[in-house]
Amino acid sequence: MSEAARIRPATAADWPAIWPFFDEIVRAQESYAYPFDLTSESAREIWMMRPPGQTVVLEEDGAILGSATMGPNKGGPGDHIGTGSFMVDGAARGKGVGRRLGEYVVQWHREQGFHGIQFNAVVETNTAAVKLWQALGFEIVGTVPEAFRSQKHGLVGLHVMYLPLA
Amino acid sequence: MSEAARIRPATAADWPAIWPFFDEIVRAQESYAYPFDLTSESAREIWMMRPPGQTVVLEEDGAILGSATMGPNKGGPGDHIGTGSFMVDGAARGKGVGRRLGEYVVQWHREQGFHGIQFNAVVETNTAAVKLWQALGFEIVGTVPEAFRSQKHGLVGLHVMYLPLA
Repeated sequence: MSEAARIRPATAADWPAIWPFFDEIVRAQESYAYPFDLTSESAREIWMMRPPGQTVVLEEDGAILGSATMGPNKGGPGDHIGTGSFMVDGAARGKGVGRRLGEYVVQWHREQGFHGIQFNAVVETNTAAVKLWQALGFEIVGTVPEAFRSQKHGLVGLHVMYLPLA
Repeated sequence: MSEAARIRPATAADWPAIWPFFDEIVRAQESYAYPFDLTSESAREIWMMRPPGQTVVLEEDGAILGSATMGPNKGGPGDHIGTGSFMVDGAARGKGVGRRLGEYVVQWHREQGFHGIQFNAVVETNTAAVKLWQALGFEIVGTVPEAFRSQKHGLVGLHVMYLPLA
């Protein structure tokens, strides 16, 4: 990434740039348990958060390299715990886009006064993601066995990961 | 419960009988992390499942004593794992309504060919529920610490529980 890379709130105008890599990542069936029949419209509903949540993009020289969502994981008496989701364009992997987005999401939750961040379903064979979250301080709280059908690995576990912020 | 007690699919006409105990349970803030500002309409959207999920009621002598939801916990490559939620009318506690509904939900998932059942957020101080799920074979996979603000107990953990079916 160049120094021009920056993270900013996503707008409706960004969706056409997000959807191609969102779609590719979901179709690969290695990291997200979203429905198979998502359209651009239904995916946009899932990804583009409304307050108190937020969706951001990482933009470099006018190109969107990745996107992340953040906000409360549950409602009411569970709304002090945040969560996030991350998508990085395949063409931009290995450049630290995921890490930059991850650091942003952690910082955002900290500033908003969240008590912790929970990731509900990290595919255990998605080792790049697992290692990144661990590097940011997340711990594996537990693993639901065989809860994800990986295209490459068959039935694999889904980690619940947690980072305390307070 | 009398022998007349039976479990059947919920219909739209059942919602007015479900909503009062649903609302009471959510307001008690001891077992569900639903938004504080639920209306009858938004709660009905959450509770009344569409296929492939299902919502049932336990009815005895024309009175609805409890209700349960069931269906896939996630989409796509995660849709082989089911989940469920349970509400029992406060006036009908201790009669085995929760157990009857729990057994029904397990059996339903078995018949539908699910690989397992995951409960995402069982409040650790809701010991009646934790013990019931353990009696049905569920195990605690992990506990997200301090993820629920209990009215009685303050910050308590949320268990992820799992029952393998295959």
